Amino acid sequence: MKFDVLFGGVSFEHEISIVSAVALKKVLGESIGNFIFLDSSHRFYLIPLDSMKSKLFSSGDYKKCTEIFLQRGAFVKKTFFGFKPIIPHTLINLIHGADGEDGSVSALLDFYHLPFIGPRIESSVMSFNKVFTKIFAAQRGVKVLDYEILTRANPHLKHIAYPIILKPARLGSSIGVSVINEEKELDYGRDLAFEYDDTIIAESFKSGVKEYNLAGCRVKNGSQDEYRFSIIEEPSKKELLDFERKYLDFSRTAQVLQADISSALVAKLQENFMKLYENAFEGALIRCDFFVIDDEVYLNEINPIPGSMANYLFEDFVGVLTELAYNLPKKHSIKVSYKYIEQIHYAKGK
Amino acid sequence: MKFDVLFGGVSFEHEISIVSAVALKKVLGESIGNFIFLDSSHRFYLIPLDSMKSKLFSSGDYKKCTEIFLQRGAFVKKTFFGFKPIIPHTLINLIHGADGEDGSVSALLDFYHLPFIGPRIESSVMSFNKVFTKIFAAQRGVKVLDYEILTRANPHLKHIAYPIILKPARLGSSIGVSVINEEKELDYGRDLAFEYDDTIIAESFKSGVKEYNLAGCRVKNGSQDEYRFSIIEEPSKKELLDFERKYLDFSRTAQVLQADISSALVAKLQENFMKLYENAFEGALIRCDFFVIDDEVYLNEINPIPGSMANYLFEDFVGVLTELAYNLPKKHSIKVSYKYIEQIHYAKGK
Repeated sequence: MKFDVLFGGVSFEHEISIVSAVALKKVLGESIGNFIFLDSSHRFYLIPLDSMKSKLFSSGDYKKCTEIFLQRGAFVKKTFFGFKPIIPHTLINLIHGADGEDGSVSALLDFYHLPFIGPRIESSVMSFNKVFTKIFAAQRGVKVLDYEILTRANPHLKHIAYPIILKPARLGSSIGVSVINEEKELDYGRDLAFEYDDTIIAESFKSGVKEYNLAGCRVKNGSQDEYRFSIIEEPSKKELLDFERKYLDFSRTAQVLQADISSALVAKLQENFMKLYENAFEGALIRCDFFVIDDEVYLNEINPIPGSMANYLFEDFVGVLTELAYNLPKKHSIKVSYKYIEQIHYAKGK
Repeated sequence: MKFDVLFGGVSFEHEISIVSAVALKKVLGESIGNFIFLDSSHRFYLIPLDSMKSKLFSSGDYKKCTEIFLQRGAFVKKTFFGFKPIIPHTLINLIHGADGEDGSVSALLDFYHLPFIGPRIESSVMSFNKVFTKIFAAQRGVKVLDYEILTRANPHLKHIAYPIILKPARLGSSIGVSVINEEKELDYGRDLAFEYDDTIIAESFKSGVKEYNLAGCRVKNGSQDEYRFSIIEEPSKKELLDFERKYLDFSRTAQVLQADISSALVAKLQENFMKLYENAFEGALIRCDFFVIDDEVYLNEINPIPGSMANYLFEDFVGVLTELAYNLPKKHSIKVSYKYIEQIHYAKGK
C-alpha cells in the first residue's frame, strides 16, 4: 500500500507541515505515492519525490511544479485534451493547524470522495477549539484542568488563581500563548492572545507536572475493534514549548523509549485515550497529551494530526498506517429521493 | 445586490432544499442572480431561472443544464478555451441537513473564497449534532430540556422519565424521531433512530408546551453591532412534525403574525437568541426554536439554514439579507512565512 501526503496549508504551522512531510519521506520510504502541497493561496501542486526539500517551498520554486485540482475521486492535472487524474492512494492529511485541523481539508476530501487518514469535520472542530475540547473531554468523563473563557466582551478573570496560562482558543502551535504569574502581567498576555483569536482560554498553570504523550488509532481485526497504541513518551521538560523548539519536534524520526511508568498508569492513559477517540476520531491517528497530577490523568490536548504523525512513537509505523487505511470510516449512506415531490405533482395532476 | 442560491445536496432533506429554493425564487424576485444545484453525486449545475421547477430535479432533466465547477473565487464553466467564471454574487447556502448544515459546504465555500450567507464550520458542527447543541447552549447559559445520550455500546436509559422523544443525533428533519410513552415502545424507537446515527439523544417529552420561533442575524450599523430580529411565531400545534408536513413548511412565503406574547417574553427570547448567536453564527441568518415552560425559556433547536430562510417571519426580508451580505465575517488573516526554514538553512550554510 502507498500513501499520498498532503501538506502545507494556510496556517501558522505551514512551515512545520513542510518539515513534517520531509520527515515522513524518510520514514515511509517506498510507501510514499505522491507529495501534494497546498500553498498560501489554496492552490495544490504535485511535488516530485526528489524535490522534497524545505527550500523548494521557501524559495517559491514549487510553483514550477505541476498545479493539480481537486475533482471527484482524484486530484487531476491539466493536459492538452482536458484533465487527467493523478493515480490516487490513501491520503495522509498532514496539514497542521488551520485548514488541516479545523475541518476544512477534511470537508474537502470527504466531499470529493478521496479516502484519507485524518480527523473528520466534527472531531476536527472539537479538537481545534480548546474550549470545545474541554467540554468534549468532560462530557466523555476525561478530567481537564480548571479553566475560564475570556472574550473581548468579557475579558476578566473570575475564579482562577495565578499562575495561569493564556492561549488563543484556536491556534495549534504555541503562538500567542503566555504564562502569567501575577496580575500585572495579565494585560500583556491578554493582548497577545487576542491578536490571534476573539476567544482566549485561561488555564491553571502547574509547573513541574508530569506529562505523557500517547498516540494511536482504532482498527478492526476481523470483526473485533482493536486499538493500536504507541509507546508512551514523557516529553523532555521545558516551561513552555517555544515555536522553534516545536519546529524541531516536528522533524523527529528517531524512535524514543517508553516512559518509566507503572503498567497501571499505562492502562489508565490508554483508557482515557479510548474515551476520547471512540465514536469521534475514527480514521485518524491522533496523539493525546496528558498531565498526571496526584495519580489522576488530565487531558492537556488532542493532536488529531500530530507532528510527523508521531512516527517516532511506533515500532511498526507503516504497519499501523496500513491497518488504519483499511479501516477508514464510512459515512452513513444517504439516498436522495424525490418521493414527496412526485406525490405533490401527482396530487396536482401535473 | 443580487444573491446566488445554492441548493440540493446529499441529504435526507434534498427535496425540501429544492422546495425552499423555489420559494426563494418567488420571494427574492429580481434579487436572484444564479441558482446553483448540487446533485446526489456532488456535481454542481447552473439552473436557468425559468427552469426552476421541482420536476426538473425529480425527472433528472437538470443534467441537461450546464455543469459548473468550484474554483478559487468563483464557479466556472467549461468552454472551448478552458474555464470561464460565472459572475459571482453573495451565495445563500440553502442546502438543508447534511452537506449544507454539517460544515461541508461552508468549508468548501470558505476554502475557495466565495462569500456566502450561512453558518461557518464550527457553528455548523455545534448545531448539526444535537448532543453538541445541548452542551453549547448550556455553556452559554441557555437552558435545555433534560436529556441522555444513547450509543450502540451504551443503549440504556438511566435517569430520564417517560414520555421521552428519541432523535438521531445528526439528522435535521424529523426522520428517525419517535415519541416513546412507555418502556415497551423503547426497542422500536431505538432501532429506528440507530438506522440513521450511532448516537441517539433521548429527551424528556412534554406535550402541550408553548413553542416560539425567532429568526435573525447580527449586522453592523456604522461601528455598532445590531441584531435584526424577525417577529416571533407560535408554530401551529401538532404532536410531531411529520416529514410531509415539514415539507410544506419549507415552501412558505406568506407573512405570518407575531405571537400574542408579552414584551417581557419577547425580550427574554431575543436575549437567549443573542447568547447563542454571538461569536458563533456571524454570517448566518438562523432560526431558533424555543420552548417556554413556567415562564422559563428552553432551547429546542437551532436551524442555521431555516426552511426558505424563514422569509415569512420578516417584514423586509431582502433588506435584512442585504445588510447581512455586507457584514459577512472575515477570517483572521494568516500570513504564511518561511522564517524558520530560512534560519535553519542559514545555520546549515546552505
